Amino acid sequence: MGEETFLPIDAAEAGHPDLTTDVLVVGFGAAGTAAILGAREADPDCDILVLERAGGPGGAAAQAGGIIYLGGGTAVQRACGFDDSAENMTTYLMAACGPEPDERKIADYAEGSVAHHDWLVDHGLVFEHSFSQETQMETVGTEGLIYSGGEDAWPFNELVPPAPRGHLIQTKGATGWLVMKTLASAALGAGPHVAYDTTVERLVVDDGVVVGAVARRQGRREVIRARRGVVLAAGGFIWNDEMVARAAPTLLKANWKVGTEADDGRGIQMAQAVGARVKQMHAGEVAFPIIPPRKLMEGILVNGRGQRFINEDTYNGRIGQAALYGEGGDVFLVIDEASYEPNWMGIGASWVCETPAELEAEIGLPAGSLEATLDVYNRHAANGEDPMFHKVPSLLHQLTGPLGAFDLRIGKIPYAVFTLGGVESTTDGEVLGLDGRAIEGLFAAGRTTSGVAAFGYASGLSIGDSTFFGRRAGAAAAARR
Amino acid sequence: MGEETFLPIDAAEAGHPDLTTDVLVVGFGAAGTAAILGAREADPDCDILVLERAGGPGGAAAQAGGIIYLGGGTAVQRACGFDDSAENMTTYLMAACGPEPDERKIADYAEGSVAHHDWLVDHGLVFEHSFSQETQMETVGTEGLIYSGGEDAWPFNELVPPAPRGHLIQTKGATGWLVMKTLASAALGAGPHVAYDTTVERLVVDDGVVVGAVARRQGRREVIRARRGVVLAAGGFIWNDEMVARAAPTLLKANWKVGTEADDGRGIQMAQAVGARVKQMHAGEVAFPIIPPRKLMEGILVNGRGQRFINEDTYNGRIGQAALYGEGGDVFLVIDEASYEPNWMGIGASWVCETPAELEAEIGLPAGSLEATLDVYNRHAANGEDPMFHKVPSLLHQLTGPLGAFDLRIGKIPYAVFTLGGVESTTDGEVLGLDGRAIEGLFAAGRTTSGVAAFGYASGLSIGDSTFFGRRAGAAAAARR
Repeated sequence: MGEETFLPIDAAEAGHPDLTTDVLVVGFGAAGTAAILGAREADPDCDILVLERAGGPGGAAAQAGGIIYLGGGTAVQRACGFDDSAENMTTYLMAACGPEPDERKIADYAEGSVAHHDWLVDHGLVFEHSFSQETQMETVGTEGLIYSGGEDAWPFNELVPPAPRGHLIQTKGATGWLVMKTLASAALGAGPHVAYDTTVERLVVDDGVVVGAVARRQGRREVIRARRGVVLAAGGFIWNDEMVARAAPTLLKANWKVGTEADDGRGIQMAQAVGARVKQMHAGEVAFPIIPPRKLMEGILVNGRGQRFINEDTYNGRIGQAALYGEGGDVFLVIDEASYEPNWMGIGASWVCETPAELEAEIGLPAGSLEATLDVYNRHAANGEDPMFHKVPSLLHQLTGPLGAFDLRIGKIPYAVFTLGGVESTTDGEVLGLDGRAIEGLFAAGRTTSGVAAFGYASGLSIGDSTFFGRRAGAAAAARR
Repeated sequence: MGEETFLPIDAAEAGHPDLTTDVLVVGFGAAGTAAILGAREADPDCDILVLERAGGPGGAAAQAGGIIYLGGGTAVQRACGFDDSAENMTTYLMAACGPEPDERKIADYAEGSVAHHDWLVDHGLVFEHSFSQETQMETVGTEGLIYSGGEDAWPFNELVPPAPRGHLIQTKGATGWLVMKTLASAALGAGPHVAYDTTVERLVVDDGVVVGAVARRQGRREVIRARRGVVLAAGGFIWNDEMVARAAPTLLKANWKVGTEADDGRGIQMAQAVGARVKQMHAGEVAFPIIPPRKLMEGILVNGRGQRFINEDTYNGRIGQAALYGEGGDVFLVIDEASYEPNWMGIGASWVCETPAELEAEIGLPAGSLEATLDVYNRHAANGEDPMFHKVPSLLHQLTGPLGAFDLRIGKIPYAVFTLGGVESTTDGEVLGLDGRAIEGLFAAGRTTSGVAAFGYASGLSIGDSTFFGRRAGAAAAARR
């Protein structure tokens, strides 16, 4: 068994199991953690085994900002004075997560979101009942609530009353590690068997039903029988260049991969090899660390031809996608003195000039291009309007006097990407086959699946849907007989 | 067997074959036609059976413009005075067909292109040794050679000396039907068994090897044994809305599907169901019927914000992709009197105004946006330059005086689309499994595969790679023992 194959093996060929469990969870990141808890809730007595490639729990979520996308009127939202409803949350997500987002997942997720918030709190997460307008990703302070998907910006602010839904635990900076430490500790309390440094290599099938997996631990092959089901919570595929080239080649250009080396697509490929179908494999989230401070968004973002291409006040993940997919990573932020503040990550102005003509020459934009863009922008900003991209009036002013530009080209700043495509699954985590029928015995959650965000994204949706549908998948696997 | 499944069936379960052949070709379009001929060339004595869903041969190619992309110094190119080489053709295709095009297929295709031209001529196609600059799709006259991929426009004209490679047979208008009538007639001369009105529903496998297929003809199920191989030449998936929504949702917006109803993805799905892997399933060609006349390209294309977004002189399929994927189908062509001529399809100016300000108001563009775009364009056009998009100097002049605009928004004109994604195959047409190894007994060509054009496209590449690699696939199947 020195081979690297992820193709399934027949139960008869795999031989006598070395271990038997009821529910086998593959991966101890956000989705796997929730799957353990979900399985335990569904059956206080079932055997749960979780296998993790790394030396401990956490997965990609532990490296993330730690935002969790929740709404519909959570305790945090209410305490901060924001009205929200499952219906408004659904409307926003359907608009923001497309094209062709999974309507059933979104409706279910919005409907169950308040309860999910409470469940997370019950498992130890502490959200401060305070709001910050400054950021869309990690907070600088300890505030518990932020806009993390452009809900307060065009075009979403015209659809439904904006409500912030990015929930953050009461810690400064990136909090994914603490979210995962807390939740994994709760999951360990649920009494699963755990093996770290263990890679699941292939699924075991018996007459089309997934009945276990073959794993490798310290060079030793182990056959695991899962009586009720296998939950693939094995991450995405951003660390598999070949798979990215085949499915999502635009992401190859990006220079910062979000996740762990275990996000090599093995989970998705093991599922495909037993007949799973996949969805929107070209989709990727592209984080773009310009703000905080939000004041910088009073400047304008332009492409390599000096043209604006998006409203600057929208979610910076949307800006990142537009910059990478639409502009090939060739973008700049132009500011005047009134909109300048130091960027939180230390990104500053690469050029400062007295006039637009000098600035466009310095940057290497076509002569007159930035001047023309500024003319149109300033003409309308004077009236508090932005007919091109509908930036909110509070961030509009005429950009005059000396101008500066941040060099946001790919290679100059991090374009942090991870994959959003994966296997198609039901709201109970069942993996769908090519013909749309559930593959018996196989469940999945997290970035192994195409989730709430089909292509468009909001920060917090990954830990959000990983824990929400991971829990479902664990429960469904435990309930299967 | 009333079910619609495309999942494979075991040979034992399928039962005794109703028919036995050496090579089974699924689909009698361009790829299937070439597969028949390739199989016959490889083995004068082998049995070939071709099954076609429609009542006769032709497939999508018969409805197409009929361009065939060939180069490297064909007789037509040489007679028209164009220098070309396999190396230049490879360089162009690598740049134009990405991101991440199939380097082996491209090199092979370019290397074998002159011979493929001669083979097509030997099988009855007549190319006039004349060139037209007017169009990039179908000719208005009977000229045999056109630019069909933007080879003479930026950025490709800076890479290698431009050479036109779109070959057209000596007939006016869309010639796909005659290309296919001629080639299918040659294929029929090769003596295959042929069944029309016959749908291949699933593959028959024996221990992982593809050994035949189950077909349905006039309500009757037939099991076909293929001793040497099955060639899937069953088209793409533009007529399968569910598959398009899952894999290439942007294409759902388009309003004209190119192909036949048999382009429902069944071929791709049958292959996936035996473990085939797929490539760039989100890719689609978007034809945009603005020119001829080429003179119209002296105008400027702008999006719904009055901004230019591409050089107008490039291949209109590239314009179509940029318009649909990049601008959401919200584009206009702005012309002055000097650049106006009636469009070949009857598309005319929807608005005519005395000034840019009036025109932008009429169209509904942001005030000042088109004016600013024209200012920059005219400033540089006066010097014969286009630093924004590098349109060739011969098509540059200042746009002044009364202006008109063509309404090219989706819904106003046809955005004609078909899918480019499909199974991954070798240069011999072998279908690759998820693990990168060829699936024994299974071959594919044409739009069932991801071909020469991974995402970027040139007109003629579909009939081009369908016939080139279809022939290879047929030969490889016939040679298999």
